[in-house]
Amino acid sequence: MNISGLKMNFAGKDFVRITHYSKKEIEYILDVAEEFEDTYRKKTQMKLAEGKILATLFFQPSTRTQFSFQTSMHRLGGSVLGFAGTEYTSVMKGENLEDTIRMFDSYTNIIVIRHPEAGSAEKAAEVAKVPVINGGDGSNRHPTQALLDLYSIRKFKGKIKDIKFAFWGGIKYSRVAHSLALGLAMFGAKIYQVYPGNQSLPDNIIQELKEKYNVSAPPRLQPDEALKQVDIVYMGGAIQDLTIGGGKAMVSEEERKKTLEEYNKYFVLSLERFKKLGVKDDLLVMHPLPRHVETLKPDLDNTKHCGYFEEAGYGIPVRMALLALLLNVKN
Amino acid sequence: MNISGLKMNFAGKDFVRITHYSKKEIEYILDVAEEFEDTYRKKTQMKLAEGKILATLFFQPSTRTQFSFQTSMHRLGGSVLGFAGTEYTSVMKGENLEDTIRMFDSYTNIIVIRHPEAGSAEKAAEVAKVPVINGGDGSNRHPTQALLDLYSIRKFKGKIKDIKFAFWGGIKYSRVAHSLALGLAMFGAKIYQVYPGNQSLPDNIIQELKEKYNVSAPPRLQPDEALKQVDIVYMGGAIQDLTIGGGKAMVSEEERKKTLEEYNKYFVLSLERFKKLGVKDDLLVMHPLPRHVETLKPDLDNTKHCGYFEEAGYGIPVRMALLALLLNVKN
Amino acid sequence: MNISGLKMNFAGKDFVRITHYSKKEIEYILDVAEEFEDTYRKKTQMKLAEGKILATLFFQPSTRTQFSFQTSMHRLGGSVLGFAGTEYTSVMKGENLEDTIRMFDSYTNIIVIRHPEAGSAEKAAEVAKVPVINGGDGSNRHPTQALLDLYSIRKFKGKIKDIKFAFWGGIKYSRVAHSLALGLAMFGAKIYQVYPGNQSLPDNIIQELKEKYNVSAPPRLQPDEALKQVDIVYMGGAIQDLTIGGGKAMVSEEERKKTLEEYNKYFVLSLERFKKLGVKDDLLVMHPLPRHVETLKPDLDNTKHCGYFEEAGYGIPVRMALLALLLNVKN
Repeated sequence: MNISGLKMNFAGKDFVRITHYSKKEIEYILDVAEEFEDTYRKKTQMKLAEGKILATLFFQPSTRTQFSFQTSMHRLGGSVLGFAGTEYTSVMKGENLEDTIRMFDSYTNIIVIRHPEAGSAEKAAEVAKVPVINGGDGSNRHPTQALLDLYSIRKFKGKIKDIKFAFWGGIKYSRVAHSLALGLAMFGAKIYQVYPGNQSLPDNIIQELKEKYNVSAPPRLQPDEALKQVDIVYMGGAIQDLTIGGGKAMVSEEERKKTLEEYNKYFVLSLERFKKLGVKDDLLVMHPLPRHVETLKPDLDNTKHCGYFEEAGYGIPVRMALLALLLNVKN
Repeated sequence: MNISGLKMNFAGKDFVRITHYSKKEIEYILDVAEEFEDTYRKKTQMKLAEGKILATLFFQPSTRTQFSFQTSMHRLGGSVLGFAGTEYTSVMKGENLEDTIRMFDSYTNIIVIRHPEAGSAEKAAEVAKVPVINGGDGSNRHPTQALLDLYSIRKFKGKIKDIKFAFWGGIKYSRVAHSLALGLAMFGAKIYQVYPGNQSLPDNIIQELKEKYNVSAPPRLQPDEALKQVDIVYMGGAIQDLTIGGGKAMVSEEERKKTLEEYNKYFVLSLERFKKLGVKDDLLVMHPLPRHVETLKPDLDNTKHCGYFEEAGYGIPVRMALLALLLNVKN
Repeated sequence: MNISGLKMNFAGKDFVRITHYSKKEIEYILDVAEEFEDTYRKKTQMKLAEGKILATLFFQPSTRTQFSFQTSMHRLGGSVLGFAGTEYTSVMKGENLEDTIRMFDSYTNIIVIRHPEAGSAEKAAEVAKVPVINGGDGSNRHPTQALLDLYSIRKFKGKIKDIKFAFWGGIKYSRVAHSLALGLAMFGAKIYQVYPGNQSLPDNIIQELKEKYNVSAPPRLQPDEALKQVDIVYMGGAIQDLTIGGGKAMVSEEERKKTLEEYNKYFVLSLERFKKLGVKDDLLVMHPLPRHVETLKPDLDNTKHCGYFEEAGYGIPVRMALLALLLNVKN
């Protein structure tokens, strides 16, 4: 539901960083997503993108990002082509990224790219005439995950402003956290960090928070302290971000081991722990998934604390909205 | 052609085992397949599943099952997404099957899963709200292959009841044979077994045949004896079922060698052998394919004995029928 | 624009070699491509192939050929399924090519095949009832690339006849060059060869040029000489054709090294070199891509000499035309 009555034109724009858009623009995307939620829930199809082709260029394998973009394009009535993963990575190694992008630019109507190198989506956007969406570039940014997380928060809590939101786990190399922290700051949420070792948000993000949204470095909380105080804990990071963020190990094996030990001791979330601590009834757990069931225990799955499955589903209306707006087919 | 005039409602049901359905229900599916055969033969498209999305989740690679489901969904006017094979298997190894299924459950309208573990389709069906079709689970079941084989028999021979049907080759670990034996018993065919070593139907299937359909253990025939007596020989099994059934070796290397030797000596089918034996003109050879041309000789391909190519094609109308019924779009 | 006003019927024909078609027929295909160019440029969709399914069987990975066929089928309103690359190659190794083709022949409406063996497309065309398009067979032929190159030349230069055209680089094992040389001869272009070592057009092609089009062996030019004399230099060949043509090394490691050295010394194309030589303003560089940026320098990309990006794009209208004609949906 487009509360403002406003109509915005995103035709031909890229979506590479969330900070390239104003709060009003992001809100508009989320409003359009709200309009599309019915199509998502009823699993029907609109004809808005009929005849359009989406290229999904996944130089790194992906599950939710890739399949939700494909689903979203089908729900809009469009077609999809592209590649995923290791095989094509080697095939295309012989070709520079610009030439690959030029090919899909002349074939398709819109491009989503995931690539192990930070800055790759920016590079693609410079070359392509059609809109380019960043589906995750190395350990740098993942703005569409941030978008669906903002949408999820608004759905779960009715607002984003003033929500107490704690990043939970190592987020130094988490592209999801980097984009989401900026999105949360844009909307005036209260951000906290709960992390093992020295795996806090990196300096460049801290600086951007200050410069763009006048938000100071998010305070660090101790795990139990956070669970009692905040409205939302956002898991993620940790194992994958220390080892495969951007496709390669980010820290020494020794540091990794130490961090993991700390993580396994203090960062496991379970209903048992929630009960022992006596957390609020409406403490919400979010997670971009996939999870490790050892650290996000399935005993939480069927409780009111579980937000992570609905969150994943919201990828559909949100990515539908983004595609429709950049393709300029949403009237 | 729906002979009975009956209309049955399969909306939202799963198709995990053939024994979950009654004979009447299976017949109804085959009748609907008959209605769709014209679309298959003329290679046209219906709009029944327009706007619906099929997820093809192949944790093991596949050819006929995967591509015939995709073809069937396209022939019904719907869309397809998913993955196949080794690459994604490793990608999704970090995630439990339930979480993967939950994702596709919220994205798509219906799911086909092939997985190396017995029971995986059942597990998926428990988690998903949308219909789940078992595309083969380990060495356990493969009910849609059984369905298309029943359809083929009905087309080739005009009926299934009282047809003398011989499984030919090792079927201890053949998921195709397990499902088909039960389907044949449901319809009152006369089942025989012709196998090397001790590669007969396993005890659990023998028991199910007795309990569900009051059918005794199918008699063992000697190879030449079978070729002279039965109406249909159903090849398959042997090599693949001893080594990659469920993705891993099922017997010791020694036993495998011995079985293969026996197989190569007594189980090769060829026109030459048929002529020498003087088999019936209408002895039909079926095979789920792919075949090894060393054991099912191409000299049979252009003879009246060859049923295996048409059989593969019947995968289309049968899987179209199954998809349309479970999606509840067949009116 | 169909200049002749003529209507030709290609229904059910295969496209395995360019020499299987007359000059009039090839011109007709190019005319239909011209009609479709608007759809390509505006990135819209026609409904001509609605309900039809294209099978893309890429036993070797591919980028432009595969994705442009997929794009073309989507632009015509049809569906696509198939496989690409290493994984399926191993899956299907157990099955002979004929059986694989029979499967897709019964499922789909038209087949494109790329395969490492010379003659594989011919074999597929013999088995299949639906049209088979050769997407590259080993180091043998690649007729649809030739088709789009002829189209590109006509677009760039207004005609093909009498155009001075130089193959640039080793083309002994270049399937692209083999097909294109025959196409150029068919249209009366003036063909030259500029190659390192003894990597000229092979004897069988030289012979075919003579027999079919009464064209003598294309003269060899020295690199600088060619750049000053011809209208078009067609890069390609060299590295890939000496090592992965047909998926395997074609020459000894020693010969390969020597050829590469010569190539790197004399065959690099750059704006710098063009300026130093003082080439004609309208000297055009074509390349089937992907390129090596070390030998086709990016300083040419934004100059009037650059034809290779537009050339790649022309794959869409040309392959749309071919699909529409063979499917008999172009009225």
